[in-house]
Amino acid sequence: MKQFMDKDFLLSNETAKTLYHDYAAKMPIIDYHCHINPAEIAENREFKNITEVWLGGDHYKWRAMRSNGVDEKFITGDATDREKFQKWAETLPKCIGNPLYHWTHLELRNYFGYEGVLNGETAEEVWNLCNEKLQSGSFKVRDIIAASNVKAICTTDDPVDTLEYHEQLANDETCKVEVLPAWRPDKAVNIERETFVPYLRQLSEVSEIKIDSLESLKVALNVRLDYFNERGCRVSDHGLDYVVYNPASDEEVDAILKKGLAGEKVTFDEMEKYKTAVLVFLGEAYYKRDWVLQLHYGAIRDNNKDMYAKLGPDTGFDCINTRNCAEGTAAYLNALAAKGALPKTIIYSLNPTDNASIGTILGCFQGSEVAGKIQQGSAWWFNDTKQGMIDQMTSLANLSVLGNFVGMLTDSRSFLSYTRHEYFRRILCNLLGTWVENGEYPADMETLGQIVQDISYNNTNRYFRFNV
Amino acid sequence: MKQFMDKDFLLSNETAKTLYHDYAAKMPIIDYHCHINPAEIAENREFKNITEVWLGGDHYKWRAMRSNGVDEKFITGDATDREKFQKWAETLPKCIGNPLYHWTHLELRNYFGYEGVLNGETAEEVWNLCNEKLQSGSFKVRDIIAASNVKAICTTDDPVDTLEYHEQLANDETCKVEVLPAWRPDKAVNIERETFVPYLRQLSEVSEIKIDSLESLKVALNVRLDYFNERGCRVSDHGLDYVVYNPASDEEVDAILKKGLAGEKVTFDEMEKYKTAVLVFLGEAYYKRDWVLQLHYGAIRDNNKDMYAKLGPDTGFDCINTRNCAEGTAAYLNALAAKGALPKTIIYSLNPTDNASIGTILGCFQGSEVAGKIQQGSAWWFNDTKQGMIDQMTSLANLSVLGNFVGMLTDSRSFLSYTRHEYFRRILCNLLGTWVENGEYPADMETLGQIVQDISYNNTNRYFRFNV
Amino acid sequence: MKQFMDKDFLLSNETAKTLYHDYAAKMPIIDYHCHINPAEIAENREFKNITEVWLGGDHYKWRAMRSNGVDEKFITGDATDREKFQKWAETLPKCIGNPLYHWTHLELRNYFGYEGVLNGETAEEVWNLCNEKLQSGSFKVRDIIAASNVKAICTTDDPVDTLEYHEQLANDETCKVEVLPAWRPDKAVNIERETFVPYLRQLSEVSEIKIDSLESLKVALNVRLDYFNERGCRVSDHGLDYVVYNPASDEEVDAILKKGLAGEKVTFDEMEKYKTAVLVFLGEAYYKRDWVLQLHYGAIRDNNKDMYAKLGPDTGFDCINTRNCAEGTAAYLNALAAKGALPKTIIYSLNPTDNASIGTILGCFQGSEVAGKIQQGSAWWFNDTKQGMIDQMTSLANLSVLGNFVGMLTDSRSFLSYTRHEYFRRILCNLLGTWVENGEYPADMETLGQIVQDISYNNTNRYFRFNV
Repeated sequence: MKQFMDKDFLLSNETAKTLYHDYAAKMPIIDYHCHINPAEIAENREFKNITEVWLGGDHYKWRAMRSNGVDEKFITGDATDREKFQKWAETLPKCIGNPLYHWTHLELRNYFGYEGVLNGETAEEVWNLCNEKLQSGSFKVRDIIAASNVKAICTTDDPVDTLEYHEQLANDETCKVEVLPAWRPDKAVNIERETFVPYLRQLSEVSEIKIDSLESLKVALNVRLDYFNERGCRVSDHGLDYVVYNPASDEEVDAILKKGLAGEKVTFDEMEKYKTAVLVFLGEAYYKRDWVLQLHYGAIRDNNKDMYAKLGPDTGFDCINTRNCAEGTAAYLNALAAKGALPKTIIYSLNPTDNASIGTILGCFQGSEVAGKIQQGSAWWFNDTKQGMIDQMTSLANLSVLGNFVGMLTDSRSFLSYTRHEYFRRILCNLLGTWVENGEYPADMETLGQIVQDISYNNTNRYFRFNV
Repeated sequence: MKQFMDKDFLLSNETAKTLYHDYAAKMPIIDYHCHINPAEIAENREFKNITEVWLGGDHYKWRAMRSNGVDEKFITGDATDREKFQKWAETLPKCIGNPLYHWTHLELRNYFGYEGVLNGETAEEVWNLCNEKLQSGSFKVRDIIAASNVKAICTTDDPVDTLEYHEQLANDETCKVEVLPAWRPDKAVNIERETFVPYLRQLSEVSEIKIDSLESLKVALNVRLDYFNERGCRVSDHGLDYVVYNPASDEEVDAILKKGLAGEKVTFDEMEKYKTAVLVFLGEAYYKRDWVLQLHYGAIRDNNKDMYAKLGPDTGFDCINTRNCAEGTAAYLNALAAKGALPKTIIYSLNPTDNASIGTILGCFQGSEVAGKIQQGSAWWFNDTKQGMIDQMTSLANLSVLGNFVGMLTDSRSFLSYTRHEYFRRILCNLLGTWVENGEYPADMETLGQIVQDISYNNTNRYFRFNV
Repeated sequence: MKQFMDKDFLLSNETAKTLYHDYAAKMPIIDYHCHINPAEIAENREFKNITEVWLGGDHYKWRAMRSNGVDEKFITGDATDREKFQKWAETLPKCIGNPLYHWTHLELRNYFGYEGVLNGETAEEVWNLCNEKLQSGSFKVRDIIAASNVKAICTTDDPVDTLEYHEQLANDETCKVEVLPAWRPDKAVNIERETFVPYLRQLSEVSEIKIDSLESLKVALNVRLDYFNERGCRVSDHGLDYVVYNPASDEEVDAILKKGLAGEKVTFDEMEKYKTAVLVFLGEAYYKRDWVLQLHYGAIRDNNKDMYAKLGPDTGFDCINTRNCAEGTAAYLNALAAKGALPKTIIYSLNPTDNASIGTILGCFQGSEVAGKIQQGSAWWFNDTKQGMIDQMTSLANLSVLGNFVGMLTDSRSFLSYTRHEYFRRILCNLLGTWVENGEYPADMETLGQIVQDISYNNTNRYFRFNV
């Protein structure tokens, strides 16, 4: 029996161990998609206790606690931080087989040196140990980033954001990590939502372009695209309910936009046409700037309307959609390819049963600009589990060229989540090592080590042009 | 090599063996969803031969025989019981990898002490051995139930049922097992079927409420809900083609119902609206009575119309639907949650690729009344296989809190099928044991043993309030 | 650690090794579905180099090269064969986990005796070795087929084909393999395409039946069905975007056909009705001739319109569709069953998440004419991988009777691809062997060996009536 989460955690054979310890572990981290707040890096935030770090905004843990029958008072309510921590610690042992169990203990080991097991009885001990370190003055946000060997971080930003903290960090010589913005224009895409009109007003102001037509919207977006580009942005991100391709003439889309701007309700078909037009425009815009397009789809968000009214979005009430997106995705990429303006693209579906379909879409749109121009993103969100990563990488290997995979990202709000890169690398090394030990690939450690280091770091550095 | 189906069947490591033999095996059984006939318990039926038990109504075996080219004469036709048994025995060896192979041999070992292998050559020996025991006078239905350590059984009953056998059993001190009704009101939901009008007439009679409007339908259903509740019912069951949420006003639904009652054909949209209204009404009704709502969906039934005409429903001509039900399920649960009337709910899809989506829907609607208020049901029907159960439990562990899982049910028409609980527990113990041996969970046998016993029995007892 | 691709490749235990080496390996091959050109067998083509064999038409390899950023010049362009081979060799090491890695090395070992590893450095050595053998005069197409122990091949042919090469081969005593035509009438089905009118004109000419109505279309098709039947055809093949069942009266379909023949655009609904009618007609026609119906669905083809314009179809720009086809497939088979005219049928979906649904559709339509009348086809195209085959066979075993499976086909354009039968058999033997070693099936080598030989060869021979 292997010891619980020892140094060879998830590494089941000698080749896997060598690949991880001698090749993967030493590689730095580029976290090209996450949701951390750049202000917290700029101000070098210090957390006052482990509940702040772990339970302040982590809806994965909130869901687990709710699934354990914990009252909302101890989750997002007015219970004390110590009480909340206790409830979390009592929930954890029942989370057998859940990545939260591993993430929690990886973080306790790597950042706090705790080799024990967190549960209701050890909660007090862990609480004290973690808080002592967190309050030591030498475990602020930048310390954590440095200790995690992170070279670059892409945050997630709205086109109207000032990017002031990114600028501040770029000019701060004491900050050793590159913190770059990423462009997430969902509010300009979602014409059917109440946020649309106020948002376009805001976009008008920030861009200093009066938006009253499709053409002026494009001008305004271009202003902000350039603004982001000048500040080092090289990646976009779209959160789509599903992927549609429903083309219409510029005239028709212009009329739909005007209808939307007038506060009228657009039809379903009009919504799809507007979104298609904006997504095609943006795809081209990314191509011109050599940015990467990220497509995230397959979520149904804010399912529990009562809880949404109380807590807002991203609080643990989303689920996986099982809608068919293959035709829309292929048609959208083709539309960009037909214009000679298909950017580097990473496709993520929250529905893991889309793995195979996505793996085959990739091969239809590759290009010679870069190896692996069209990528499937690493197992995302609910799929960011041992099984989810094994499935995604096995599928990708079967259907595409695994050696060119850009690999892991945290997609996280937490500064302790860089351990997820370790988790991913262990799983990657074990997968490859197992194939080798089974005689399915030669035991050529030079080639294998190169593949592991490429997927862990080099491919990302090259693909996004980070040059760190 | 492990011996064929020995005492450590499906247990691949020491932790798994300890968990099964020392913790799981001793737990009693609560079979909270099955299709056995309560009259047969009341009358304590004795089977005259093994064909009656195994091939009298088991459409799993019928399908296998048909897939082996066996003529219908030897399946549901007029061949002798001995001839039918021979055909089944000859089919079995080709069913390598099918759960029928394991179920059959588990039943032969546990109930008849037969340690051999059933095939065409051993059929005569097995036939004689089984029949001798079945005809011994000490192997009637209640003997089997007692030998299986079953504490409670929920049958599947129609709202118009008298529940006379449940009453008889409740008053029979010689009956050691609790036999409770379950409420399955599909015929009152399926307005599009020919059965609808005659059924509502029957419901009117039994409830003594003239049903001529939505309001009077609700009153009639409430009468029967109370009737069931008084007789110990605490669980409902809905068999849905797919899950829809298509709300309409009471007035509109009332008009649709009246149209249906008049024998007119309702449109597809009307059908969806009627079903939505009745499902929301019933969900609230269950909540008020602290019942559990079971949603079973994803089947296309009676595909072979000729065979349906000959043999009726539930004879082996159903298949898995792959329709998208995520949006409908989430919207339906939200509608109940918004009314503050979401009951404990167990979701089962026959489509195994819905596992991930369901696992994420659960977390959107949990509550503090009970740990694991919203559950994914155990791998159902066609998925009730080793692989199906591994997949369902791995998915559930990844996406929710496995420790709160209410676990196994037989969903069976057969009194010998309690071995499926053993099959499930072995797979559960092996899954957990493998994680432990891989260093993915601490080797803390107290916590692990508790989890195993909870999933085997305690969670069910608590969740449904059986208190047996 | 196992050696890379040694004699026990993919065989992880002793039972698996015995099953493969003592039972499976010796069985001949019937390749009942492929895309090789019968003219090349008739003329006994000799390839001038390994690029011609491997990269002349293999869109699997083309996709991999494109995914590695290789310029089209080196794929389908005007680079030299040696240059193209180099690019392929350099791509291969990154294809870790891809079946191309295994197929390539199986072919190098089995046909060229090369025991090394192909990569950029060994490319020159492999190029010389392969070309020497290919140009030796004793390694022509028929030599390869004979060396592969192939007894029968079904090509893929259009109803208007003359089948002249099949006739020539049938009369050629020096040809030791049976080369039979297969009927693929997609162009007569696809009324929505531009090819439809010219194709029906061609069909009119070849059948000598003027097609101006549904009735005359049926007559023309019958003429060609008989023509194929007389030349040994016993299998059809349909490539469908998705499976629909949308029935209409003969009058309505006749009008739709006339509209199509007049060059008018048919509506979506009309298209579905026409296709349904033709598919039902053809299903009956196959039944009458005791042919096998193959349904291949779930592809979206020619996604990259620019590349389609340059290279045409089947050049590596297809992907997996995720559309729901369960209801259509079940309804279509029922329509044929209701007419008493359901032929033997093999269902293949390109979407691997359809496995479970298909596995359950089978059991609804079996018959006593032959064991396993309705089959799920072997893991197809993008799923023709180790994992894809394990998944398909596990699903089939769980849901049907694996022992009656008709097993592998190459679906290939390449004469070296018979190694895929070896790949399949190794995976089959390992799957069964693993079950046995785990105690899930008795270690009865006689029964197991029979199952393995049946799935490798005997079932196919019997099912299709090859009698080779």
